[in-house]
Amino acid sequence: MNEELTRINPQETRAWAKLKNLSEGEKPFDLTTPDALSPERIRAMKSSAVGFDFLYATHQITDEVLAILQQLANETHAVDQYVMMMSGEKMNRIEGYESENRQVLHTASRNVFEYLSCDYDDKQADAVQKAQSQLERLKEFLDELDSGKIKNAQGETFTDMIQVGIGGSSLGPKAVYLGLQGYRQGGHRVHFISNVDSDDAVQVLREVNLARTLVTVVSKSGTTLETLTNERLIADRFVQAGLDVKKHFISVTGEGSPMDDPKKYLRSFYMYDYIGGRYSATSMVGGVSLGFGLGYDNFVEILRGAREMDLNALKRDIRENIALLTALIGIWNRNFLDYETLAILPYSQALVRFVAHLQQLDMESNGKRINRQGDVVEYDTGPIVWGEPGTDGQHAFYQLIHQSNTIIPVEFIGFRQSQYGGHFEFKGSTSQEKLLANLLAQSIALATGKNDCNPNKVFPGNRPSSILIAEKLTPFTMGALLSYYENKVAFQGFIWNINSFDQEGVQLGKLLANQFIDHFRAKSVDANYSGAGTDPVGWAMMKSAGL
Amino acid sequence: MNEELTRINPQETRAWAKLKNLSEGEKPFDLTTPDALSPERIRAMKSSAVGFDFLYATHQITDEVLAILQQLANETHAVDQYVMMMSGEKMNRIEGYESENRQVLHTASRNVFEYLSCDYDDKQADAVQKAQSQLERLKEFLDELDSGKIKNAQGETFTDMIQVGIGGSSLGPKAVYLGLQGYRQGGHRVHFISNVDSDDAVQVLREVNLARTLVTVVSKSGTTLETLTNERLIADRFVQAGLDVKKHFISVTGEGSPMDDPKKYLRSFYMYDYIGGRYSATSMVGGVSLGFGLGYDNFVEILRGAREMDLNALKRDIRENIALLTALIGIWNRNFLDYETLAILPYSQALVRFVAHLQQLDMESNGKRINRQGDVVEYDTGPIVWGEPGTDGQHAFYQLIHQSNTIIPVEFIGFRQSQYGGHFEFKGSTSQEKLLANLLAQSIALATGKNDCNPNKVFPGNRPSSILIAEKLTPFTMGALLSYYENKVAFQGFIWNINSFDQEGVQLGKLLANQFIDHFRAKSVDANYSGAGTDPVGWAMMKSAGL
Repeated sequence: MNEELTRINPQETRAWAKLKNLSEGEKPFDLTTPDALSPERIRAMKSSAVGFDFLYATHQITDEVLAILQQLANETHAVDQYVMMMSGEKMNRIEGYESENRQVLHTASRNVFEYLSCDYDDKQADAVQKAQSQLERLKEFLDELDSGKIKNAQGETFTDMIQVGIGGSSLGPKAVYLGLQGYRQGGHRVHFISNVDSDDAVQVLREVNLARTLVTVVSKSGTTLETLTNERLIADRFVQAGLDVKKHFISVTGEGSPMDDPKKYLRSFYMYDYIGGRYSATSMVGGVSLGFGLGYDNFVEILRGAREMDLNALKRDIRENIALLTALIGIWNRNFLDYETLAILPYSQALVRFVAHLQQLDMESNGKRINRQGDVVEYDTGPIVWGEPGTDGQHAFYQLIHQSNTIIPVEFIGFRQSQYGGHFEFKGSTSQEKLLANLLAQSIALATGKNDCNPNKVFPGNRPSSILIAEKLTPFTMGALLSYYENKVAFQGFIWNINSFDQEGVQLGKLLANQFIDHFRAKSVDANYSGAGTDPVGWAMMKSAGL
Repeated sequence: MNEELTRINPQETRAWAKLKNLSEGEKPFDLTTPDALSPERIRAMKSSAVGFDFLYATHQITDEVLAILQQLANETHAVDQYVMMMSGEKMNRIEGYESENRQVLHTASRNVFEYLSCDYDDKQADAVQKAQSQLERLKEFLDELDSGKIKNAQGETFTDMIQVGIGGSSLGPKAVYLGLQGYRQGGHRVHFISNVDSDDAVQVLREVNLARTLVTVVSKSGTTLETLTNERLIADRFVQAGLDVKKHFISVTGEGSPMDDPKKYLRSFYMYDYIGGRYSATSMVGGVSLGFGLGYDNFVEILRGAREMDLNALKRDIRENIALLTALIGIWNRNFLDYETLAILPYSQALVRFVAHLQQLDMESNGKRINRQGDVVEYDTGPIVWGEPGTDGQHAFYQLIHQSNTIIPVEFIGFRQSQYGGHFEFKGSTSQEKLLANLLAQSIALATGKNDCNPNKVFPGNRPSSILIAEKLTPFTMGALLSYYENKVAFQGFIWNINSFDQEGVQLGKLLANQFIDHFRAKSVDANYSGAGTDPVGWAMMKSAGL
């Protein structure tokens, strides 16, 4: 492992200094200047890969900025670091301190289409073989469900699956499942229970016939409190209904965890510590429920799309590597133009929960303040990511994006065709044309703005955005889109010299929550209990909240 | 109307200057100082109203800051302006320019519990009477559905309702409906179709039996493109199924609009131009679907909660007026501590879409850059609002909130009891206790942080938050919560001297979208059509997007 490559602080590169000069010295490229947004510029600032076109003429960049961003990628060895990650180096670590110190091999979960070639360092070989083997076990299991070899006690097939998991064990698979409703197989339905709030579980349980429902419990450690609580709550309902939990429950967990237990589960699939939760949708964490809901072949298409996009991330020319290009433009917006948030706005109702997945992917990965040597960084890192589908968002929060003084860079996502192909024409245009017309219009409106004698009708413009567009949201496209964002986030982390693969920031809350749980537990057995002595602040908070 | 009160720029008040000094001169109150967060402080910084407790000890404020915030409210006549709004003055206007120039009377939609007393200026009287009359018509209609007086062609009752509307005609009602699933009546289900993306409609139509489905189309003007497109798409399906549209479709629209037509609709309810879309959940925009789904009495309870919270907004002491207090703390965070976003994090799965509603409510209202005299403001206005329910969010984006260098103020929302009362105990505590333990823990963790020898385990702390907690998410509580945020947003707008009730920022996108729709229409009839001559930029964008 070439450790030098994981020690480069971006602000020490020549490119960083040049970008600083460019952004401070003169005004960055102004999209409202007459003819700034020309047809030539629009045609030139376009990159294409894996069926996606990426249009970025409406960012506040010039060819000069792009050239220096390329230099930044080169000086920080962004692609080399990506290759290190993909080939199994321990990229999840903080040098000189206790850290997870792990490989980062979510890319192996979709590197399943060929025997390993000699191009790859063999440190990923084990992960690839395990992915292939889990995938074979999944196929076998799904075949047994289809053929009726596995049935419920009444000899019926299963119609529903509930996935119980939180964070990465829920957001990615749920976003993909909702994103591909047009590809559901066999009338199967998948439901997700994540929140420790029992209302979440009760609500889902109202909607299914337990006798024909499988439950997939996902926890790498087998100890996630929310997930175990919900598993137990659901298992109780099965028992009350006279059903045998072991014939309905599946686990996706680490090999050897408390949940890797054939006495308790119909089947166990494995997840590995070299795949972080937020990067796990293409592993068995997504595989079991997506395979059940969309069919095995569609899950494999998701993997194929993700794999193709991973291969695109190996290209060194930023105009050919669309994840790296969007990562670099994001860095220009965050570190040089000082934009604090990023709105991701899919013009596709199917992607209704995709941004919730991206929130975790991006903010948990890059919401960091120390670099990989443990020093506090002197530059901003990951943006706040948020968004909702268009055109709905237009009728909600676009007012602020267009007319407030706060600038919000936007990543639009669109598809030329709808998923269901409901070609409904009204007033001479189809729904899909109206949808796309709005997408294109927003990008131009944000860029150019509009003057008016009425100050309330003035649009200042010069607000950056890009458009990522593909033909149709298919399983392949969905997989590629997942990978595109995973790779974007990883590239930004490599360039910022931060560890995008741990999440120490979630620990303190867990610790303090356990203190409060102890108070609740003690209170329930002793009405005179007081926590004021051992935990005066927490106890005062509890009492103030009427608890 | 005392117009002077709508001309006060906040930065010209004495309070503003004092707050500026306090925030710049010395470091604002630091929650990480030993004993800063004391039990005494926690007990003192609590306000209660309408069944809610508001805990704000974990904000970076002192009694001195609070006193000056009170002064700011007084100098800007925040409560007087609220009274002006409630009593029917034209608060939706920009002085000296063409503007909507309307009353703002969403509060009238829940001022239905008594005959108007003399306390109120009679400018709201008409709106109150109309609200009462629409409510009576709603009751009559729902009674006719219940009694079977209105049935489908087969003589069956209706089981499902689809609400077709976008923006305020969808987000608020949907958030409330999903928030109160434990209160559904008669097995009725409500669905929402908003997006012009036909996948949205097709997906919903797969899930209902059209013969037993009512469709409520909501558009004030009767001309909203997305809504009309979806209405037509759905109507086509009814016709294809041999059903009579007129026996299934209801409209909620402006009196005299193209949709106010007894020849086309089973029933029409009215909405009025003095109620903006994002403030309309307590009008017939929410009434029809919430009345159908939750029952008339529960809808009235929503109104009762909202009304009670409106009355709380009349109090002049900021420690008694919780919407005003949270508005002022928001101004401290936005204008003096320079925090650009606001995370609203409900520890309640039922509120899963509530933040999407608040995004519109807040960002469309206060995402403005000119004041009510048409001058560009020199201070920041509405924050970017975002969030997802906890504990799910903890496993997603909390990493960034705890450990990045970007500070995000948080408003936590919680309830002492779950809605379904699923008192599930596991490891000595219930699900609800675990949920609340996490809520309390996050607030303290964000405030106090934690030191550690391992820099990756350091939590800088001093991150502001508050907790709003009530007993249970009931229809009454839900109504109060709606009103609380509506009033918070209105107070901030009054203090910022901006018009929180228009949305000119959505117009340019509509205009440009129509240009693109024209291109699509022309293209579909003439394969050789080119828009390059009349619209070179737009046409280049279309071609670059492969369209």
